[in-house]
Amino acid sequence: MDTPSSTQQQIEQALLDEVVASFDNTPDPRLRQLMQSLVTHLHSFIRDVRLTEEEWNHAIDFLTRVGHITDDRRQEFVLLSDTLGASMQTIAVNNQAYKDATEATVFGPFFVDDAPRIDLGGDIAGAATGQPAWVEGVVTDTEGNPVPGARIEVWESDEDGFYDVQYDDGRTHGRAHLFTDDQGRYRFWGLTPVPYPIPHDGPVGQMLQAVGRSPLRAAHLHFMVTAEGMRTLVTHIFVEGDPQIEIGDSVFGVKESLIKRFEEHPAGTPTPNGRDVGDRTWTSCRFDIVLAPATNPDTTDTPEEM
Amino acid sequence: MDTPSSTQQQIEQALLDEVVASFDNTPDPRLRQLMQSLVTHLHSFIRDVRLTEEEWNHAIDFLTRVGHITDDRRQEFVLLSDTLGASMQTIAVNNQAYKDATEATVFGPFFVDDAPRIDLGGDIAGAATGQPAWVEGVVTDTEGNPVPGARIEVWESDEDGFYDVQYDDGRTHGRAHLFTDDQGRYRFWGLTPVPYPIPHDGPVGQMLQAVGRSPLRAAHLHFMVTAEGMRTLVTHIFVEGDPQIEIGDSVFGVKESLIKRFEEHPAGTPTPNGRDVGDRTWTSCRFDIVLAPATNPDTTDTPEEM
Ligand SMILES: [Fe+2]
Ligand SMILES: [Fe+2]
Repeated sequence: MDTPSSTQQQIEQALLDEVVASFDNTPDPRLRQLMQSLVTHLHSFIRDVRLTEEEWNHAIDFLTRVGHITDDRRQEFVLLSDTLGASMQTIAVNNQAYKDATEATVFGPFFVDDAPRIDLGGDIAGAATGQPAWVEGVVTDTEGNPVPGARIEVWESDEDGFYDVQYDDGRTHGRAHLFTDDQGRYRFWGLTPVPYPIPHDGPVGQMLQAVGRSPLRAAHLHFMVTAEGMRTLVTHIFVEGDPQIEIGDSVFGVKESLIKRFEEHPAGTPTPNGRDVGDRTWTSCRFDIVLAPATNPDTTDTPEEM
Repeated sequence: MDTPSSTQQQIEQALLDEVVASFDNTPDPRLRQLMQSLVTHLHSFIRDVRLTEEEWNHAIDFLTRVGHITDDRRQEFVLLSDTLGASMQTIAVNNQAYKDATEATVFGPFFVDDAPRIDLGGDIAGAATGQPAWVEGVVTDTEGNPVPGARIEVWESDEDGFYDVQYDDGRTHGRAHLFTDDQGRYRFWGLTPVPYPIPHDGPVGQMLQAVGRSPLRAAHLHFMVTAEGMRTLVTHIFVEGDPQIEIGDSVFGVKESLIKRFEEHPAGTPTPNGRDVGDRTWTSCRFDIVLAPATNPDTTDTPEEM
């Protein structure tokens, strides 16, 4: 593609300058910054790719379809943000690296507030079917001090790849919360995670198909860990050896540090807490969690101190 | 805002690299280019402004509302593109400066295909009320040669700021097409243009209010000029002295070269073609049009030859 003439570049730049200046009188300085940065990047995109009018029309039509499929139960704009990595980048920006604190990843749409409480060593799976998985670890701060009484929310799909809320019968399974003991330790029974597709029967699914991408998420187990004085951690663990990690998680949630070994044990192997899992294999996984200190929400993190 | 640490920057860049690479296998090379550029600019925006999770939620909600107000009669995504200058930048990119060819501007939503034909000197206003305006000029190529038989479509609002299609009664007024004579000349009666607001009772209107911008468009008269071997010109003329030009056209359509003098004549002044406009003032305006040669739609313009 030819480089535009300097006259042409001046015309395009003058237009952008005019658009940026139109936000100069925005009363809220943060909104002004957001809008001026947004239009600058948007115009750079249009100019860089020399967007055609037909492509512009296609984009308007695509966004219209995303809007029209979105309702109370289906949020296609979130899916779009997820599949473009925008959700994960927002999470990265808001959970800045802090020493060796555990990395954050996407929250996802399947968390619910009122998951049942279980005791240490209890079972989150409930009626959800799948291979039993024993998960344990310790929650510490970045100095290695245990964090007792940390609240851990865990949730995952069943072996068919569905969360309880995706069924129409109001069931609750595959989710619970528990608290660390006085040495910061936690342990529970869940299910070995399996890959599942994000909803792909809409415009975002069509986009993924057009670009040759899989709608599957790498197998994962969700965690949210809260403790007083600590930065809340929203993350997953992923399953070492899951081929979908190589193929690509459809929402870019995988971090190397979050890939954990789910060791498989033959049927009949005694379980850590004596639970009888019947004539089934089971897995075990260790996930130690390091929480960053809480930050003042009015400032960004302080990486200068790292 | 603090600069992120180098570790943090590496994390963010690695995520962007992963997202870009996810489009590597897109079969259509143009789609691959578009998506890779789009995510690069999108991630740069998120990183530059350090977008908060609350702001991300607000953006998702805003886009959802834009989607839900959009229907067959109302295209809020187009309004959004217009008010962010994205429509005008796309037009600029696709109508590159060519010698002294007349500049293009936004097409707008009010063109209709089957406007009546009028003879030279005829009236496009019909039943639309407003101050009569005599508009004339010559259509030439960039060498100054007249372009006979060029088709000129013209359309505008009435003095209340409404296009005919905005009324529910199926009326046609304020639009017509005509052809240049054998010396490339054209002339017609229209109405002196007045400012009108873009629809501002939806999320885009709320955005304009939040940033302190007017929803008004500068007063204008639409032209579309087509002739064999020539690049089709979609443009407006604006009214010299219209205060909205200074305040800011809500869709950034104004170009200095498109601001024209509408000279006002006292009631009773004889009109150029003897039309009796009764006991009213009227205006006259000259707009000479220079058409660029048609370009191969498969290539961008050739500014190197300028
Ligand atoms: Fe999930
Ligand atoms: Fe208009």
